[in-house]
Amino acid sequence: MEFFKEISKIKYEGPNSTNPLAFRHYNPDELVMGKPMKEHLRFSMSYWHTLTGMGADPFGEGTAVRPWDSVEDKIEKAKIRVKVAFEFMEKLGIEYFCFHDRDVAPEGKDLAETNKILDEVVDEIEKEMKRTGIKLLWGTTNAFSNARFVHGAATSCNADVFAYAAAQIKKAIEITKRLNGEGYVFWGGREGYETLLNTNLGFELDNLARLLQLAVNYAEEIGFTGQFYIEPKPKEPTKHQYDFDTATVLGFLRKYNLHDKFKMNIEANHATLAGHTFQHELAMCRENGVLGSVDANQGDLLLGWDTDQFPTNIYDATLAMYEILLAGGFTTGGLNFDSKVRRASFEPVDLFYAYIAGMDTFAKGLKVAAKLIEDRVFENIKEERYASYKEGIGAKIVAGEVTLADLEKHALTYGIREQKSGRQEMLENILNRYIFG
Amino acid sequence: MEFFKEISKIKYEGPNSTNPLAFRHYNPDELVMGKPMKEHLRFSMSYWHTLTGMGADPFGEGTAVRPWDSVEDKIEKAKIRVKVAFEFMEKLGIEYFCFHDRDVAPEGKDLAETNKILDEVVDEIEKEMKRTGIKLLWGTTNAFSNARFVHGAATSCNADVFAYAAAQIKKAIEITKRLNGEGYVFWGGREGYETLLNTNLGFELDNLARLLQLAVNYAEEIGFTGQFYIEPKPKEPTKHQYDFDTATVLGFLRKYNLHDKFKMNIEANHATLAGHTFQHELAMCRENGVLGSVDANQGDLLLGWDTDQFPTNIYDATLAMYEILLAGGFTTGGLNFDSKVRRASFEPVDLFYAYIAGMDTFAKGLKVAAKLIEDRVFENIKEERYASYKEGIGAKIVAGEVTLADLEKHALTYGIREQKSGRQEMLENILNRYIFG
Amino acid sequence: MEFFKEISKIKYEGPNSTNPLAFRHYNPDELVMGKPMKEHLRFSMSYWHTLTGMGADPFGEGTAVRPWDSVEDKIEKAKIRVKVAFEFMEKLGIEYFCFHDRDVAPEGKDLAETNKILDEVVDEIEKEMKRTGIKLLWGTTNAFSNARFVHGAATSCNADVFAYAAAQIKKAIEITKRLNGEGYVFWGGREGYETLLNTNLGFELDNLARLLQLAVNYAEEIGFTGQFYIEPKPKEPTKHQYDFDTATVLGFLRKYNLHDKFKMNIEANHATLAGHTFQHELAMCRENGVLGSVDANQGDLLLGWDTDQFPTNIYDATLAMYEILLAGGFTTGGLNFDSKVRRASFEPVDLFYAYIAGMDTFAKGLKVAAKLIEDRVFENIKEERYASYKEGIGAKIVAGEVTLADLEKHALTYGIREQKSGRQEMLENILNRYIFG
Amino acid sequence: MEFFKEISKIKYEGPNSTNPLAFRHYNPDELVMGKPMKEHLRFSMSYWHTLTGMGADPFGEGTAVRPWDSVEDKIEKAKIRVKVAFEFMEKLGIEYFCFHDRDVAPEGKDLAETNKILDEVVDEIEKEMKRTGIKLLWGTTNAFSNARFVHGAATSCNADVFAYAAAQIKKAIEITKRLNGEGYVFWGGREGYETLLNTNLGFELDNLARLLQLAVNYAEEIGFTGQFYIEPKPKEPTKHQYDFDTATVLGFLRKYNLHDKFKMNIEANHATLAGHTFQHELAMCRENGVLGSVDANQGDLLLGWDTDQFPTNIYDATLAMYEILLAGGFTTGGLNFDSKVRRASFEPVDLFYAYIAGMDTFAKGLKVAAKLIEDRVFENIKEERYASYKEGIGAKIVAGEVTLADLEKHALTYGIREQKSGRQEMLENILNRYIFG
Repeated sequence: MEFFKEISKIKYEGPNSTNPLAFRHYNPDELVMGKPMKEHLRFSMSYWHTLTGMGADPFGEGTAVRPWDSVEDKIEKAKIRVKVAFEFMEKLGIEYFCFHDRDVAPEGKDLAETNKILDEVVDEIEKEMKRTGIKLLWGTTNAFSNARFVHGAATSCNADVFAYAAAQIKKAIEITKRLNGEGYVFWGGREGYETLLNTNLGFELDNLARLLQLAVNYAEEIGFTGQFYIEPKPKEPTKHQYDFDTATVLGFLRKYNLHDKFKMNIEANHATLAGHTFQHELAMCRENGVLGSVDANQGDLLLGWDTDQFPTNIYDATLAMYEILLAGGFTTGGLNFDSKVRRASFEPVDLFYAYIAGMDTFAKGLKVAAKLIEDRVFENIKEERYASYKEGIGAKIVAGEVTLADLEKHALTYGIREQKSGRQEMLENILNRYIFG
Repeated sequence: MEFFKEISKIKYEGPNSTNPLAFRHYNPDELVMGKPMKEHLRFSMSYWHTLTGMGADPFGEGTAVRPWDSVEDKIEKAKIRVKVAFEFMEKLGIEYFCFHDRDVAPEGKDLAETNKILDEVVDEIEKEMKRTGIKLLWGTTNAFSNARFVHGAATSCNADVFAYAAAQIKKAIEITKRLNGEGYVFWGGREGYETLLNTNLGFELDNLARLLQLAVNYAEEIGFTGQFYIEPKPKEPTKHQYDFDTATVLGFLRKYNLHDKFKMNIEANHATLAGHTFQHELAMCRENGVLGSVDANQGDLLLGWDTDQFPTNIYDATLAMYEILLAGGFTTGGLNFDSKVRRASFEPVDLFYAYIAGMDTFAKGLKVAAKLIEDRVFENIKEERYASYKEGIGAKIVAGEVTLADLEKHALTYGIREQKSGRQEMLENILNRYIFG
Repeated sequence: MEFFKEISKIKYEGPNSTNPLAFRHYNPDELVMGKPMKEHLRFSMSYWHTLTGMGADPFGEGTAVRPWDSVEDKIEKAKIRVKVAFEFMEKLGIEYFCFHDRDVAPEGKDLAETNKILDEVVDEIEKEMKRTGIKLLWGTTNAFSNARFVHGAATSCNADVFAYAAAQIKKAIEITKRLNGEGYVFWGGREGYETLLNTNLGFELDNLARLLQLAVNYAEEIGFTGQFYIEPKPKEPTKHQYDFDTATVLGFLRKYNLHDKFKMNIEANHATLAGHTFQHELAMCRENGVLGSVDANQGDLLLGWDTDQFPTNIYDATLAMYEILLAGGFTTGGLNFDSKVRRASFEPVDLFYAYIAGMDTFAKGLKVAAKLIEDRVFENIKEERYASYKEGIGAKIVAGEVTLADLEKHALTYGIREQKSGRQEMLENILNRYIFG
Repeated sequence: MEFFKEISKIKYEGPNSTNPLAFRHYNPDELVMGKPMKEHLRFSMSYWHTLTGMGADPFGEGTAVRPWDSVEDKIEKAKIRVKVAFEFMEKLGIEYFCFHDRDVAPEGKDLAETNKILDEVVDEIEKEMKRTGIKLLWGTTNAFSNARFVHGAATSCNADVFAYAAAQIKKAIEITKRLNGEGYVFWGGREGYETLLNTNLGFELDNLARLLQLAVNYAEEIGFTGQFYIEPKPKEPTKHQYDFDTATVLGFLRKYNLHDKFKMNIEANHATLAGHTFQHELAMCRENGVLGSVDANQGDLLLGWDTDQFPTNIYDATLAMYEILLAGGFTTGGLNFDSKVRRASFEPVDLFYAYIAGMDTFAKGLKVAAKLIEDRVFENIKEERYASYKEGIGAKIVAGEVTLADLEKHALTYGIREQKSGRQEMLENILNRYIFG
């Protein structure tokens, strides 16, 4: 059965194509810096926004028209969605996907039944993966939507909830292993607080670390070698989310001696909600060796919530790819479109328009970033800018060979010898030259 | 010579006083939880906002009317200001002050002369300290106002600037030691970046750590035993400040193995610029054992810059004092009014009105917080809320005696047995009862 | 049948009561400025948040435990909720309520059936109103939740939707008239845009005005004399809501010559989302003679969405009541708690805790505000502050008796003769004296 | 005397030029939609940021290196800056400039002397204008920087200040007339409030209207026919600026019957501070027939203050030019770079880099916008989107030929017949095609 009958496989037609159902920049096998674009970008479909998101918001019901959802039986519907998902990915040429346990299968009357249903649907997923060659970028668990997580999962004040979340994670790691998932993400949707008046902050953070350690132990026990990621977000749904941003998570991991076990899954819109640019969060990861995977989307900086829009801003895509390339490119991670079509884009074809827009934006961004790096545009400028640390007192500072007294002597002798402009406007103009020159 | 002739020593007149030049809540020797209020609060005058701030902003010149500033000679003016400062503190009954090197003395033609002038003015400060018994809460250096710090101080791309900042810090530590300062603050006014296009993020962070380590070494060398503090701020003046918030700084310190050497100096307005409540930042410090000192002020949450207003919000003051008391109270730190009178409050008497407002707000906050703690209002609620971790599976989780498999078994057996409301509205009502009941 | 069996009528027990199910400040018949508190405050229950809100958010399902909702049949459930609502109001002593058509009754298969169901449930409401004497503060229609309003209601690009919204409004006005509603609110939940790329801004605004004019005409036709209100909000759910804030709405109404027909319904959390204080919006209304009614709640200024929290901040409540009293008090309007219990406050009793907290906060705010006005605290200060406009050149300016040339002559002759401090810190301290002195 | 000796006239070298001192897109005489680019864009130099801005910020002194400023005498320095300004404009090929009275000349000991100095410097400006053919886009007065405006200008509580501001405006209009300025801007830098506790909001707004009316009268009296503009800004320096945004100003002007006399001067960074996109503010102007002139810059949406960066974002420039072209293009207005080089871009050449970046961004934006309009990309989509208002019930709604009862009948009969997707993602992708396709 074909679900998107009117849509054929999306093809690359080059920058001048006006076909909205074609790629203008994404040419999967085209080499960029000696590697096919698809291997650089490792695009991934997010199961939740693509298959189960219906466009509801706090002020209104869902709007999405999804003819395949007309089936009544929840398990049957879940299985049909598996087929829809793989047809969708095939037609777009997307080779990876990501999912939460609860995206793919409904809950049963208790955990045992829920797990059974999950296994049943995962059978279908496995079949489709074999049939198509599409791979699992990462798996995860949804320990935030159900009412039981009202006070958190690992950070709930209720030990039963901690145990329940742990059980979900165990199962989700198992499934991820079974499907050869290359990674596993921890996004703590309810790991945070609503008010400090009733919250034991330190205890909740300790418990969060405890659960992560248990997951690390279990992965070792069963031989799951996929990469563990933490996905930072500063707020929403809770008032304060513990995994605020990369810097916060790095500090947390170091405190609990977990920093060798986790990399980051950076989401653009989460970065901006934390007051950072997308590039900043990626750069922080790169500098700390934890750039793992990316949730590609974009927020509206004039709005204060997670809009999860499809990424169409060429600046953000370029600077993101620039950081990713500088970091050596993805290994286990990829660009997962944690993006949802607008509530008003309710037709199935809008899913294609949206993914095409996002994929083309990142494909173009990749090409611009590669050119910037090949030309060493910013690298040369930085090298010259920090040149004073290559010799003399600067080199000694870096080598750890000076004391405050030495530095005082230097300052008393030389003062400041020369200052150079930071040239921000010229650099922004150069970036524009590479983007639309 | 008396500078505030029309103003006598500010006295405590009780809650019903309508005298705007009297305290209604701050009664220095009144015991709260067995300790005099003044020892709980350890109020401190900020030299910069109080003596050298003139009310200029990016759109206009200073407005402050300060008759004592009519002296032309800069060094003479600096010495007069010392006398003004101590008269001001005496009249308010403030027993501590804080200063940057550049607040108290002007720069000379080079660093040597600058240091000489500084010593000369510090002589005057020392005399006044002896005369009055007023103490130095903490010293610091201003390595951000002068144009030489345009690209940062420790994080400048110019090694000469690193050396210059180091020399300033050395001198400032020496002066702080000489004046028996109980602490020393690092606020990196220009330690951040304007654009990532020209910034070597990792290198700059390494250099920041290098300078902190040098300062630690020097303090040990000369026997300065005051507490080192880092003051987080997320942005302003730079687009991104490296010491974003407490969590960021904690992670940074752990990475460079500096975490035993520093506590935090938390500023209310910096907290809110980072997207946190004042209480949140203090609670993060408390839970990590780094609650050092406080810059007491308040921001306007509808404005996006550091307004440094005098703190007059009773909720913030209460919850701040609550965290401080829970943490065991100040040891080396105190409540430093890093607050400035509004540009339109340009008369000398406004300085008194402002400090009185701030001191009374925190005095009342202290009393409310003490009562909350004595009654164990929130403590009892939290104890009950997290009770499930005191026995059974919860106790085992805390003790580290479970695996994911154990937890799964528990979840399969028991599911979620009972959930309790978080009671936020009731708790906020109780807080109101303590504040204005 | 009694739904809140464990809860008796909430009584006033005075400021020292520790009973969380008693009022400490709200004493309905106590006179304030010669009028009973209940007539000043005119508290109202919001039907939506109280009866139909279940605590769902974009990341999770509802959490609310509402035993009375166990009934399967939707119409039956709606009728039971009517009884719950009136028992709830009776026990709290709330004398008004507000509702959207879709809060009280479910939709049928088409508009005709929907209207029929609505009439049926309104019969029940009418009975309960007669039984209890509780009145309708205002009615309104929900023209935003249903998927048909995906592109707006009056501002939809689809004329059928415009007509549908118009039909709903017609019916809702009729019901409001039938129930002797004292007002009718227009909140345009989807009247805004998501992207300008597909939006005809001017046309949509014209259509919004057209629908308002049609409603005005219809009210006149059927003799509905209740007050029409517009409720401003700047964003959410849409990226840009047309009724951004009071100033925007006033300009819009003037443009379309509708300004004599509408007053404002000001919501605290909408004010802050627009970058204004609650007091600012009320003051703007007061100065323009359009202070109609109030949606009493509060937002979290560190979060970027409408949290609709119960109002517990005494400053906001005091300054709101100050503006309302200055404006002469409510006539048709009142304080409607457009507030929802937190998702974690899921028990029925939390509804009581929350309303009590809100009512007590506003009752205390009323008393503080009344005292401020009786003492003419700020009025006297303002009178003196603007005194220069009472005589001389100032009086001539106000009387319109000068030209630029006259003013230039004055300036050349006198310059600036005297400036007075704005005294903000002193004023904030005085406010604190009245609140917790 | 030549001030920028190392820099020749900036030339157009085409999109592939790597010369940072050349235009890649701005080709002044190239026709776009039948009109030379320079007539579309009407670039203007802002005197303040370019000549007198030194890079000071609230945390530090100026950094700008400006060799020509070494002259001690203030009036001489002002005259030299005139020559610098015109050389700068000539080399960039900028044909317009804008200035505040206080940018071009220093204040004297009183208003009479200040006016005399101003006249003296304006003589120099006039000579340079004649010599070069460069024109005055608009003049204005600075009634915000001097301490006398601490409480506002027209909205000061002090009538002397009102008179002083009026005198300045009178003089500034006269100078603007003398220099054949095509417009005159009112930006109320201090027209707002800091706290409502001491503010008579209604009275201040009335006074603001009074001063505008006096200016209108005076312009008529002396025959100044330039366009009056109001420049909205929501906050900064004051907590609340009265000219919040376009919608607010439109309402204000209508209230005081001034709406025929003023157009808007829209600044990008002010738009975003108000929570709007730049395009939104321009579209609001266009739809209300008040799109006058533009202050071209850009803000950093993650920062909460006016950064006034040079505009380098191609999306913003494209959508701005799109609105401007749709509105029929500039008549009296133009693109004034109310932009300042970053504090770290302190060399004279950075001024060139910055203006080139800004001019090229808008030149490219113009070309993209023109193509979008020529192809009727969004126009056709909108026409189809709103087609239901062209006939049937929709046409009747627009014609005002229906009542609520008619619309109800329509809704009961037809319900909603068809809904179309909003296609936001596809539209954003099309925009990308035009920008970097």
